[in-house]
Amino acid sequence: MALTTAFTELFGVEHPIALAPMGGSAGGALTAAVSRGGGLGLLGSGFGDEEWLARELPVLADEGAGKPWGIGFLTWAIDVDVVARALEHEPSAVMLSFGDPGPFVERIHAAGTKLILQVTDLEEARRAVGLGADVIVAQGTEAGGHGARHGRSTLPFVPVVVDLAAPVPVLAAGGIADGRGLAAALALGAAGALLGTRFQATAEALVAPATAKAIVEGRGEDTERSRVLDIARGSRWPAQYTARTLGHPFLDAWRGREDDLAADPHARPAYQDAVARGEIPALPEWAGEAVDLIDDLPSAADLVGTLAAQAETALARAGRR
Amino acid sequence: MALTTAFTELFGVEHPIALAPMGGSAGGALTAAVSRGGGLGLLGSGFGDEEWLARELPVLADEGAGKPWGIGFLTWAIDVDVVARALEHEPSAVMLSFGDPGPFVERIHAAGTKLILQVTDLEEARRAVGLGADVIVAQGTEAGGHGARHGRSTLPFVPVVVDLAAPVPVLAAGGIADGRGLAAALALGAAGALLGTRFQATAEALVAPATAKAIVEGRGEDTERSRVLDIARGSRWPAQYTARTLGHPFLDAWRGREDDLAADPHARPAYQDAVARGEIPALPEWAGEAVDLIDDLPSAADLVGTLAAQAETALARAGRR
Repeated sequence: MALTTAFTELFGVEHPIALAPMGGSAGGALTAAVSRGGGLGLLGSGFGDEEWLARELPVLADEGAGKPWGIGFLTWAIDVDVVARALEHEPSAVMLSFGDPGPFVERIHAAGTKLILQVTDLEEARRAVGLGADVIVAQGTEAGGHGARHGRSTLPFVPVVVDLAAPVPVLAAGGIADGRGLAAALALGAAGALLGTRFQATAEALVAPATAKAIVEGRGEDTERSRVLDIARGSRWPAQYTARTLGHPFLDAWRGREDDLAADPHARPAYQDAVARGEIPALPEWAGEAVDLIDDLPSAADLVGTLAAQAETALARAGRR
Repeated sequence: MALTTAFTELFGVEHPIALAPMGGSAGGALTAAVSRGGGLGLLGSGFGDEEWLARELPVLADEGAGKPWGIGFLTWAIDVDVVARALEHEPSAVMLSFGDPGPFVERIHAAGTKLILQVTDLEEARRAVGLGADVIVAQGTEAGGHGARHGRSTLPFVPVVVDLAAPVPVLAAGGIADGRGLAAALALGAAGALLGTRFQATAEALVAPATAKAIVEGRGEDTERSRVLDIARGSRWPAQYTARTLGHPFLDAWRGREDDLAADPHARPAYQDAVARGEIPALPEWAGEAVDLIDDLPSAADLVGTLAAQAETALARAGRR
């Protein structure tokens, strides 16, 4: 019996699973694969780079088999024109994360597109309800990649957002990498789960092979949240966001000395040199705490169904020895 | 249909719910109430104080109705004699948290008593399996009160421990305060949940009325993990453990300056003076991140059944719109 929720009904998808729109790595092929697999693929447009979109949107169109899909942006990094251009491609959903979504809401709803807002605390959740979000993603601090510096943990955060947002469907995000995590999200009252790191380790993700291997081999205890790598690589991410990554020499060198790092004139060139020499990866290895649960590199299209089946089994077995 | 797990079968209890043996506040009345309600009450003996036990054990015997119960200690704080004295009272279980349980295992098993070991990372989990733990409690950093400074979050931590420990039953701890959280724990593969903060806010807990009120009114975002209050009150807790509490003036004054606090000759007297003047509570208000979900002060005996019923409903509804 399939898992049916307010989320699957809203988008007409088979499984209550969404792809986290990871900037750069959730490209057209991965988005298409998740949608073909029965979930909701969300293209990771991040900053809204036109060149990247011009390359990935045709891949998505080619491989998406006409299934529902969406596109995600970093709210603090974009303007209304970026959203307007995306809407021309008629996504089923636009997802906004990290920042004030207010300026974009009317345009998105006017296009008949569903609005997905990611939140990291109760104030953001209240604001998302007030803005008329169609879906709210409650992101816990276990998540890989960027999130609030002072985050909540997924398990206690999700049910509070569910109560606050009802009847708006809530997706759980952060710390979910197998069907048991999806089942737990549903048990908490969520209408599904949004997964990032698990989909990084798939055939369709736009990640370096070494990064995919690091995710397969990584352990949750090796991950940490930090601003160090954003500072070292000269990223525009605002200071209120940290990112969870796997271990990294620059983390060990600068942990707890973020201000010194930002002020050091040699640090950024040293980072770039180390990248050029192949000593450190070109991008931070963003990964969530659930990375322990990832030990293969399947096709994302197959993975969606596997996760849903695992979740059904987990729910059927829960408390039924 | 009742929730049946390896944990309920092991102890012959009705519901897969255990009381966190919170030092001082999980006294005889609360332990007895949880056991009468169909869970496993665990007396919060902490440091093994004989006077406290001499007062609370008779209460437990009077009110426990002959149901299974256990007793919990801080592993780093006790010696073998403390455990030996406890075993004379024939508990069904001894739970050890935080420290090396090695020296106590043989004595506990020789008495025919079940050994419950709480773990906060994978190395501790492996060690617990190797020592022959009968139950492993996987504690996430959402938990109220003490835990590992570098903790894991419950949602991604529990399934990894479940896989590692199988077939040893695992209880999830940290961030669980209602039946949805219990349902999520079971979906993750746990054999039940161990709850602390939720049981602090009950009629039977040994907490100051103001603290119970603070828990009912508190929000998860107001809680934080810190060593500040342990240092300020001169606690013996080792430096590798922090405690999650509600907000506190000393946290605001000393956050991030723990070493300065420890070295300040005026800080501890100032803390004691503030307690004496009633400006701050006598004890830190330990509370977990799930405190948002707590809005009443029921009898713990009634609460156990309520939580189990909520969990059954949550599982029945999960993914079944």
